[in-house]
Amino acid sequence: MRLSDLPTPCLVLDRGILQRNLATMAVAVARHGVGLRPHMKTAKSIDVARLALAGQHGAITVSTLAEAEYFAGHGITDQLYAVGITPQKLAQVAKLNAAGADIAVITDDLDMARLIGKSLIPVRALIEVDTGEHRGGVTPDSPTLPDLAEALGRSLVGVMTHAGHSYGARSPEQLAVIGEAERLGVSQAATRLLEAGHAISIVSLGSTPTALHAARMDGVTEVRAGVYMFGDLFQMQIGSHGLDGIAMTVLTSVIGRHPAQRALLLDAGGLALSKDHSTAAAPVDYGFGLVLDLNGAPTLGGTVIRQAYQEHGVVECDASLPYPDLPIGAKLRVAPNHTCMTAAAHDRYYVVDGTDEVLEIWPRVNGW
Amino acid sequence: MRLSDLPTPCLVLDRGILQRNLATMAVAVARHGVGLRPHMKTAKSIDVARLALAGQHGAITVSTLAEAEYFAGHGITDQLYAVGITPQKLAQVAKLNAAGADIAVITDDLDMARLIGKSLIPVRALIEVDTGEHRGGVTPDSPTLPDLAEALGRSLVGVMTHAGHSYGARSPEQLAVIGEAERLGVSQAATRLLEAGHAISIVSLGSTPTALHAARMDGVTEVRAGVYMFGDLFQMQIGSHGLDGIAMTVLTSVIGRHPAQRALLLDAGGLALSKDHSTAAAPVDYGFGLVLDLNGAPTLGGTVIRQAYQEHGVVECDASLPYPDLPIGAKLRVAPNHTCMTAAAHDRYYVVDGTDEVLEIWPRVNGW
Repeated sequence: MRLSDLPTPCLVLDRGILQRNLATMAVAVARHGVGLRPHMKTAKSIDVARLALAGQHGAITVSTLAEAEYFAGHGITDQLYAVGITPQKLAQVAKLNAAGADIAVITDDLDMARLIGKSLIPVRALIEVDTGEHRGGVTPDSPTLPDLAEALGRSLVGVMTHAGHSYGARSPEQLAVIGEAERLGVSQAATRLLEAGHAISIVSLGSTPTALHAARMDGVTEVRAGVYMFGDLFQMQIGSHGLDGIAMTVLTSVIGRHPAQRALLLDAGGLALSKDHSTAAAPVDYGFGLVLDLNGAPTLGGTVIRQAYQEHGVVECDASLPYPDLPIGAKLRVAPNHTCMTAAAHDRYYVVDGTDEVLEIWPRVNGW
Repeated sequence: MRLSDLPTPCLVLDRGILQRNLATMAVAVARHGVGLRPHMKTAKSIDVARLALAGQHGAITVSTLAEAEYFAGHGITDQLYAVGITPQKLAQVAKLNAAGADIAVITDDLDMARLIGKSLIPVRALIEVDTGEHRGGVTPDSPTLPDLAEALGRSLVGVMTHAGHSYGARSPEQLAVIGEAERLGVSQAATRLLEAGHAISIVSLGSTPTALHAARMDGVTEVRAGVYMFGDLFQMQIGSHGLDGIAMTVLTSVIGRHPAQRALLLDAGGLALSKDHSTAAAPVDYGFGLVLDLNGAPTLGGTVIRQAYQEHGVVECDASLPYPDLPIGAKLRVAPNHTCMTAAAHDRYYVVDGTDEVLEIWPRVNGW
């Protein structure tokens, strides 16, 4: 099977690029002598997880309980569910753990911590620490930190943070600063708890940019990151990889030709690409994606998807170039702005390795 | 089962509101004595289709071949696949038709029209006409129109248009003007073809706003619309319905409390709500959705989801009100900006009817 045989729109995953991205992150993390707990929120695939875990300690991060159940079912038991737990979801986690999984949860809420501490089926828990993103977590110097630890009791195994504001950085220097604040904050929280006599075995941090650019990892036991596996146009612009580091693209067909408007219509619209327009805040606005040829190289003068309707993507063709000689049905690929969001509309990856031959089909686990 | 028992995030569909929306559209279209061909791109559900087809002529519109196959499998054979056809997809349609479906396709491309005209398995086709949206189609006075008709030969059954630019209108008067241009354009194209001796039995137009606000439908045989079934915050602002016309919402749980930042974290983020931010261009910017209580009424002072991470929605709480007394796990609902995009991340609807009792679960067909 060749790319040209596939129904469109669909996801193409280049295994060679994926493996290079995995190796880059493995080296970046190994520099510091800490573990990598790959975040499966991007790939949501057991086949990708197996590659990402090569040489690592076998633990993953997940963003939904659907992922947790799926990966546990495939034998990956050591998981961190890195979204604030609720009473209802704690019961689901306890059930999965009773069936053989070992999913740890996170909280920054005292009532929730008490509930976890009293759970009949023990569930490991980490306290979420805010090191600058201001989305979730208590600050490293928060007076609530010891109370959370007390409430969690023997369920407490560690602290974690996510410097998601690293996505706002625009240079390796800025990323190193944010990465250092992430490290300092989470290790300070760990130190406070250790000094108070709590058993803290996991000190976890990470985002793809800080994981790649951090100068030090003292006091940290593990790094979490996910989007590095596939990369995207946004990550490219904050220095996580080059254009040749984008492993996942959307295969699409030309469905309309409108030379008078210098427009080309593709069957990759807002559903197939997502409506994520994160590059609008980056140095280069790639619209809803960069148009590539079937080999994955920029084409049509480096043009982008300018508008995304539900099933139609509108390509703006460069007026200084001849109108593209692409018939209806011609296939192109599109590099996404935000690969996690784009992948989520699709149920599988068509896997290639540098050519147009489809080697394998890898399923994804979507939903919640 | 009650709403409070459901895992979150998930979709809640209020059947009473849905039926009221269906009745409103049925009446609006029946005024003109034309047929309604409901567009299933929003609901993607056989259960919704059956309600939407009550009193109609039994035909639907679809936006993907996954929908086409699903609805044909449920006995709805008369379908219009309203996205420009490609050679590969024509073969798929021919196969579905050979198995009992009767899916019509659309084109505005001469090479594609020739291919359809020569198809061994006959496939009905409509010529796409551009009546102002400038996305797809030939203009009503295009010199290509007769050539397309000739090329399609006996496959030609009609003309169709979609005044999608009606979404840019902000008053019933503007909508009526766009609706009239949509009607004039498509009926002019039909007249040209009829006068040239072609058999034109379908003259199809529609978008939810023009279908509701059109003053006349002379020369038209059917209206297509889809988003009217569920409604959303964008459609509300262009006059398609009131806030009480939003039938589909996202059920979510509180997963974080951050009084110092006046923020509440929900488990409805960019995946559960979509990253569609269409209300940014409307009179009121609802962020990534309006927060509702479990009964579906605005709550917390009418606040919205201000930021949407992959799995986290951040609610900005009104500083003039007390910080909400909602524990971790408390359930809320969120009205979406763009219901088609929001629904697509979910595989089912939990159906209620004015109360918190879950009456049924209706599956959706996603993907392509």
